[in-house]
Amino acid sequence: MAIDLNADLGEGYGIWRLGDDEALLDVVTSANVACGFHAGDPLTIRRTCEAAVARGVRIGAQVSYRDLAGFGRREMEVDPEELRAEVLYQLAAVDGVARAVGGRVSYVKPHGALYNRVCRDPEQAEAVAAAVADYDRSLPVLTLPGSAVHGAAARHGLATVAEAFADRAYTPAGTLVPRRSPGAVIHDPDAVAARAVRMAIARTVVAADGSEVSVEPRSICVHGDTPGAVRLARAVRDGLARAGVALEAFA
Amino acid sequence: MAIDLNADLGEGYGIWRLGDDEALLDVVTSANVACGFHAGDPLTIRRTCEAAVARGVRIGAQVSYRDLAGFGRREMEVDPEELRAEVLYQLAAVDGVARAVGGRVSYVKPHGALYNRVCRDPEQAEAVAAAVADYDRSLPVLTLPGSAVHGAAARHGLATVAEAFADRAYTPAGTLVPRRSPGAVIHDPDAVAARAVRMAIARTVVAADGSEVSVEPRSICVHGDTPGAVRLARAVRDGLARAGVALEAFA
Amino acid sequence: MAIDLNADLGEGYGIWRLGDDEALLDVVTSANVACGFHAGDPLTIRRTCEAAVARGVRIGAQVSYRDLAGFGRREMEVDPEELRAEVLYQLAAVDGVARAVGGRVSYVKPHGALYNRVCRDPEQAEAVAAAVADYDRSLPVLTLPGSAVHGAAARHGLATVAEAFADRAYTPAGTLVPRRSPGAVIHDPDAVAARAVRMAIARTVVAADGSEVSVEPRSICVHGDTPGAVRLARAVRDGLARAGVALEAFA
Amino acid sequence: MAIDLNADLGEGYGIWRLGDDEALLDVVTSANVACGFHAGDPLTIRRTCEAAVARGVRIGAQVSYRDLAGFGRREMEVDPEELRAEVLYQLAAVDGVARAVGGRVSYVKPHGALYNRVCRDPEQAEAVAAAVADYDRSLPVLTLPGSAVHGAAARHGLATVAEAFADRAYTPAGTLVPRRSPGAVIHDPDAVAARAVRMAIARTVVAADGSEVSVEPRSICVHGDTPGAVRLARAVRDGLARAGVALEAFA
Repeated sequence: MAIDLNADLGEGYGIWRLGDDEALLDVVTSANVACGFHAGDPLTIRRTCEAAVARGVRIGAQVSYRDLAGFGRREMEVDPEELRAEVLYQLAAVDGVARAVGGRVSYVKPHGALYNRVCRDPEQAEAVAAAVADYDRSLPVLTLPGSAVHGAAARHGLATVAEAFADRAYTPAGTLVPRRSPGAVIHDPDAVAARAVRMAIARTVVAADGSEVSVEPRSICVHGDTPGAVRLARAVRDGLARAGVALEAFA
Repeated sequence: MAIDLNADLGEGYGIWRLGDDEALLDVVTSANVACGFHAGDPLTIRRTCEAAVARGVRIGAQVSYRDLAGFGRREMEVDPEELRAEVLYQLAAVDGVARAVGGRVSYVKPHGALYNRVCRDPEQAEAVAAAVADYDRSLPVLTLPGSAVHGAAARHGLATVAEAFADRAYTPAGTLVPRRSPGAVIHDPDAVAARAVRMAIARTVVAADGSEVSVEPRSICVHGDTPGAVRLARAVRDGLARAGVALEAFA
Repeated sequence: MAIDLNADLGEGYGIWRLGDDEALLDVVTSANVACGFHAGDPLTIRRTCEAAVARGVRIGAQVSYRDLAGFGRREMEVDPEELRAEVLYQLAAVDGVARAVGGRVSYVKPHGALYNRVCRDPEQAEAVAAAVADYDRSLPVLTLPGSAVHGAAARHGLATVAEAFADRAYTPAGTLVPRRSPGAVIHDPDAVAARAVRMAIARTVVAADGSEVSVEPRSICVHGDTPGAVRLARAVRDGLARAGVALEAFA
Repeated sequence: MAIDLNADLGEGYGIWRLGDDEALLDVVTSANVACGFHAGDPLTIRRTCEAAVARGVRIGAQVSYRDLAGFGRREMEVDPEELRAEVLYQLAAVDGVARAVGGRVSYVKPHGALYNRVCRDPEQAEAVAAAVADYDRSLPVLTLPGSAVHGAAARHGLATVAEAFADRAYTPAGTLVPRRSPGAVIHDPDAVAARAVRMAIARTVVAADGSEVSVEPRSICVHGDTPGAVRLARAVRDGLARAGVALEAFA
């Protein structure tokens, strides 16, 4: 049994920084690198890729809506054809930068509002999957199990990798409790670590109503942009290690 | 003896268009595709690449300063390390899109103020050459002979391809008369065509002071963003054909 | 009986232009000036205001989502507090520029997707109305009768001015047929002019199903960004004049 | 004898923050609010103005080149007519937001590369002064004594207010040692406070070569975007207070 730990990295822009990338890169096994549309100027992308390569952390393209002012967190009614071109552009750009520093993009993970949208909107899910297939059919898409993007990926011959969120509350249906609802985000490192271990070993999570929900994560996402993010990520990593779960990027 | 005709293509953004790309693609042999920093959103890039591939026109990456509001025509004091990352990002993005539609980027041509700057600034020239070498050492850089970017390209093992401007006045030193000077741009199609033929066959151009200046162009640039651009480009193409010059993209 | 003719103006950006502003300014009585978020850089705004002032055309602020790539035509889930600040910022900026050239902003008209959204979304409608009231309670909001923004405007003590669209098909409920539906946009100048006259005199429009719908427009919108826009606008103006309707900006 | 303390505030963008604005607002008497071109989205501008109004801190418009990616720190060859429109747009926007929350813009201070440029370039200095005069001739421009913008401001009937930099090394000619030179920025709070006191009382500063240079500051700038910025600002404030210098915004 092996689990991958992924986090969003390189989410600065110009002079601005978000989170402690260096510290997080010592904890995770996969780095979702911002591609320039919600965050991530080219030099930040390059440095983030260099730092990931130096630590043997796998690089993913964290593709997003074009929305710097809103950090990609606002749903947009983007035309699918345009979205497909935008995702392809971002993916190619970051892969090119990653290759220039000795790495490569190994997977794709949609960011923020686009992530949520492609869980339920077949049109935008299809656009994202088509863009990944346009670029490289060997790249898997990291997403929630059961989301619309799974079907779209399958139609394009793409693999998907299931992830779970150790610090987010779940509904009994296995979806995430919306971020603005009370209790949606769990801040206690011990609690988050315990949830991660349960996800990895028992393959379940306790939902907000107390029911037990099945999850099958190959990767667990830890957030990097909150205060205490690094401490939380380390707690998850240490908890998994103590429970005998190997930390290993997905193939 | 063969001459390539290159023009800037895909220089729209969102709803906006510049020039008649379809008509120009029927005239030129090489398309300098805008990469998104001075013009060119991802869908425009994709469609421009598709149209170029459909006509067998060679695709180049027209890399630029990040300056949508100024169309990349304003010099910027960009840090060389940042410029290098920006050029790499643009080049990789457009090559990825081009490959998705059956083409590929075959050369790099800096745009506007960056073009002028790398003719004389060794630092920025070095940054551009390093970025191209980061991505693919087999890509030539299209530029003016004698410019700073030639030396930088050579140091990185890159080829350069010399171009000339049939519709621009030259100084006796072989540089272009600045765009804002009177007579800097030649608008008469017959005159422009005659200059192109002389450039291709006699390998010379008559400078603004009447002196004869040697040029060794492998490619001639025609502008696409002026009224009458297509007519001018056709006049150049027809003039070259009548003079027995083969129109052929550089290898 | 008097009718105002309004059109979107100044919708270029940097080097790009959209429509023939000079010609349209000779036809309309009110100019909805783009504020920089979907189109309109500061110099374009200034020149548009100067041209409007020179012709005695009234200036309105055409506030929008921040979406240059999508021309403000894509709905965005913007937080109401942020939207309120964005609308205030745009309105103040354009009013400042207008005043510097001897004019002033006399009304506000939301653009594109924001226009449609505030017709039905009370939260975003409230944000727009609050922003206008923040800046100047004497400014009316130009919008469709019955839209959510009417109630919001009233709560903030703002007047609203009803407009109608002579070149758009109506549903029997008095809303616009969505732009992508067949027959949604009417292109024949005579037909559009006849509809405008009927709107102004009979206060009705014939809906897509043939039924007669009541409208009470104080202003009629003509579009400036389509081929033939100026011809269409002139047909409307001439038709109204021939029918004895005075063309006059609203007070 | 009274001295104003000014600092750059509101220099975040979207999700990103720079410096501890709340703490700095408790120290300074004037807040240079970013206007959206190098930093500062509308909601950040609004909140910064609200916080300044709540503390009785005077608001200035920190106008800049349009360069989010470079934080306005890169010189740009902007056409003067365009620069004038851009400065007017920014100034009007921030004044409108400030007035909506009970304040107003009381002065203008160019930011970063534009600040440096208008110290020596008469064309861009003229553009900035013309823009301020376009908006409100009663607004003073905060700048270095002897800079090109002084003459331009005078020609437009604008007042200028001289400032000095307590944490920056000076040349014997009274200009700032360029930021990248060794020793250009002074980090020791006691040394910076002592310099501020000397500037305020003796009206001199000791230049990098040990010579004494005359300064006549009505305002002293403290930087907000460096680690330890707040501690430095407090040291300056406390030092001035102990030396009997009144801290007071300029009229």
